[in-house]
Amino acid sequence: MNNSISLEPTTLVIFGAGGDLTQRKLLPALYNLYLDHWLPESFAIVGIDLKTMTDDDFRQHIRQGLDEFSRRTPIKDEEWQAFAPHLQFMSGDFNDSATYTTLNTQLAAIEKEWNQKANRIFYLAIAPSLIGTVAQHLGQTKLARDRDHARLVVEKPFGHDLESAKALNHLLTRIFAESQIFRIDHYLGKETVQNMLAFRFANALLEPIWDRRYIDHVQITVAEQVGVEHRGGYYEHAGALRDMVQNHLLQLLCLMAMEPPVSFNADEIRNKKVDVLHAIRPIASEHVHDNAVRGQYNAGWLEGERVIAYANEPNVAPDSNTETFAALKLFVENWRWHGVPFYLRTGKRLAAKTSQVSIVLRPVPHQAFPATAVEHWQPNRIVVHIQPEEGIAVRLQAKRPGPTVRLSPVDMHFLYSEAFKTPSPEAYETLLLDVIEGDATLFMRADQVEAAWSLIMPVLDVWQANPSSSFPNYAAGTWGPESAEVLIARDGRSWLA
Amino acid sequence: MNNSISLEPTTLVIFGAGGDLTQRKLLPALYNLYLDHWLPESFAIVGIDLKTMTDDDFRQHIRQGLDEFSRRTPIKDEEWQAFAPHLQFMSGDFNDSATYTTLNTQLAAIEKEWNQKANRIFYLAIAPSLIGTVAQHLGQTKLARDRDHARLVVEKPFGHDLESAKALNHLLTRIFAESQIFRIDHYLGKETVQNMLAFRFANALLEPIWDRRYIDHVQITVAEQVGVEHRGGYYEHAGALRDMVQNHLLQLLCLMAMEPPVSFNADEIRNKKVDVLHAIRPIASEHVHDNAVRGQYNAGWLEGERVIAYANEPNVAPDSNTETFAALKLFVENWRWHGVPFYLRTGKRLAAKTSQVSIVLRPVPHQAFPATAVEHWQPNRIVVHIQPEEGIAVRLQAKRPGPTVRLSPVDMHFLYSEAFKTPSPEAYETLLLDVIEGDATLFMRADQVEAAWSLIMPVLDVWQANPSSSFPNYAAGTWGPESAEVLIARDGRSWLA
Repeated sequence: MNNSISLEPTTLVIFGAGGDLTQRKLLPALYNLYLDHWLPESFAIVGIDLKTMTDDDFRQHIRQGLDEFSRRTPIKDEEWQAFAPHLQFMSGDFNDSATYTTLNTQLAAIEKEWNQKANRIFYLAIAPSLIGTVAQHLGQTKLARDRDHARLVVEKPFGHDLESAKALNHLLTRIFAESQIFRIDHYLGKETVQNMLAFRFANALLEPIWDRRYIDHVQITVAEQVGVEHRGGYYEHAGALRDMVQNHLLQLLCLMAMEPPVSFNADEIRNKKVDVLHAIRPIASEHVHDNAVRGQYNAGWLEGERVIAYANEPNVAPDSNTETFAALKLFVENWRWHGVPFYLRTGKRLAAKTSQVSIVLRPVPHQAFPATAVEHWQPNRIVVHIQPEEGIAVRLQAKRPGPTVRLSPVDMHFLYSEAFKTPSPEAYETLLLDVIEGDATLFMRADQVEAAWSLIMPVLDVWQANPSSSFPNYAAGTWGPESAEVLIARDGRSWLA
Repeated sequence: MNNSISLEPTTLVIFGAGGDLTQRKLLPALYNLYLDHWLPESFAIVGIDLKTMTDDDFRQHIRQGLDEFSRRTPIKDEEWQAFAPHLQFMSGDFNDSATYTTLNTQLAAIEKEWNQKANRIFYLAIAPSLIGTVAQHLGQTKLARDRDHARLVVEKPFGHDLESAKALNHLLTRIFAESQIFRIDHYLGKETVQNMLAFRFANALLEPIWDRRYIDHVQITVAEQVGVEHRGGYYEHAGALRDMVQNHLLQLLCLMAMEPPVSFNADEIRNKKVDVLHAIRPIASEHVHDNAVRGQYNAGWLEGERVIAYANEPNVAPDSNTETFAALKLFVENWRWHGVPFYLRTGKRLAAKTSQVSIVLRPVPHQAFPATAVEHWQPNRIVVHIQPEEGIAVRLQAKRPGPTVRLSPVDMHFLYSEAFKTPSPEAYETLLLDVIEGDATLFMRADQVEAAWSLIMPVLDVWQANPSSSFPNYAAGTWGPESAEVLIARDGRSWLA
């Protein structure tokens, strides 16, 4: 979330440069930033991986990635030719301290060529198990020492539970200052997620209604149609709660529920967000059953195709207890939100791909219309659509045309793609530029990560200790298990599709 | 504004059946009601005019009107053949009591044929000067005596000033009960005008912001592109204030500003509306100069065509003091609206044809965004579009796509024509059905008419006593005189186009 442009010389070192993330996301994002003139004039990308590649092999590999994954194709040769020299490759074993010595030499050489000190960004596009190793080496070789110039970027998942997240934070903060660490949740880089801040705090229309007096409840849905795909090995140890709720859904909840910030200073925004996490009433173990629902998909039909059950996916145990669906009912215990339930749900192999935050208002205080007029009455709602279409919709009641008074719900909406001709940048473009500029607003701070883990730990623990007896409990292509409907129907409400 | 359907036998007597209004508006509206099965099974239309016509001549004349003016053409012959027998014509002099005796006989014959008593609606589609005459004859011949079955419909203008309006009310209410009198302001029959009630009182989203704490000011614009056309003779004695402000604009203001009604009972709605008129601070004579602006159009260009000055229109005095543009600044002095200015403007030969009510909100209480982000900042506004397109638009601030935070105004909107497949009925369809059903919600009550006249009298008087020295003061095709800009700019605001 950049407010101004700084153009300090920068070297971005990518650990795991031979991997998927680098080819699919990081380099396409960097290339787009380059085309849009957002990158500093003095800019180098150093890829490190165990593989042996020449600089040219690496550039070739990256070029293939651009051709396949960039949001702007075809890639123009003359632009690529200008960009390619910024890319270097270095082969190295992350466990070997020689790698870091060589890296140091290489970075020094780049800076010598530029004739000035550069910012050094270390991007860990590697397995979580390697983060500690690389960080410690960076510390030992003093690559991380210069607090003003060295930054570390860590991908999610950040920890496997509260304990491991705390341990990782402890390890990293012995080497890096908190201000040097950028924990990425790419969800926060999405335009509509950022727009939540603009929407809430630049519009006087919303301020008066944004509390328990006018809002009946909030729903946050992040629904996927994809299954676990090739990630069975990872997912078996994660599950929906870790993979989605701990990070994405709770962050959306924070943006929706946070108090107005004094400024857009990174720590100010993050303080206000973490306040929300601290205000959420933890689900006590004995209440997990009533406030949390898990599901695992069975075989089913999705858009006309037969898809298999989670338990039959590759690298998944036939008797797996891993949840591919999770729903929670949470309360934010503060003056603004007292008594307003927040219903969260996420899952794989659901009926539609959609991410949205729905704010459902209470009814009007007095219904003056005759009963015949309000047959189709629905409460007002505001829906922030994050994907697939980015936009905002407000559901109002209007009079149906005709000589009698009959009300019907109508939607007012604005779509990002219609309102602005400029295409939205990819989340990674926004986030990488933020790292380059040192703006941590959209990154997770240690206390945020730990607060989020704290919240879901009781549920994780209960679910692990009590394997589900009903899995698989929803067919692929549906909206999840029936118990998720019960969770909200018990309160006289229902999920908005 | 009908809530339920009653199908009592009804005879509609149209005085002035040979005139424009009957052919262009009333019969096309009645024919559409007929096609949509809204009319009672026992239904007759008796046209009266001084002209001599047979029933067949009259039907032929009406049929021509349908072909030309109905919103649903072509007219299907079999439908027309079924409708035509409901039409009768009677030649008669409105000053001759024999006319009314004959009418009485004719109505009795119709009711005898139906074998039941029918509602009798007397629609005065005649010059204002004849209203008293016809009403008195209706009284004398006892046609109006049955309070449960006789209704009188009076077209605007209702009076020429407060005194004449009072006199007319006095005359009518000696013959008819107030509940029998339906004073038509066809503006109130428009879908979007009616929708103002639905919009305001069926949507919890609006209730909290609808007062002086959140609304900075309100603008009501009714702009016409047409000039005075063939109505110079009438208009010379009317002017924009009488022709538009006293009725349409003040009614829109009432709908916008009224307190929530307890029910949709006709008198409840009208009580709440008249409360607003009573709450408006009258413009004292000495303040007319600062709070009211008049204009008269000069020659100019409109949509590529040269148009003449008002003073050169047919039947207009070359040194006319009649205003073709009027703007007012009003305050509604009650708890809800204290300190919120209502700016009203209307005029002929303006740059665009548009009727809209714009509610401009105050800024957010604290601007957290950096200055660079809010370069294009605009306050939130809600615009109720009445014509040419019926709908509602809300202007919000959103983040422009891109890696920096920059806010831009975007519009969320809903259009009647997009939201509903059903075409909107014409205002006269709604209003005629209301008269048939005896629902007076959308009609002007005596006290409303008089309160509206009271409000504009000081301005009318000052303008009449002090002929303008600057007429003509705006070119056709512009937004009116510069003084109208000054009226609002003095408060640091500007008209929204």
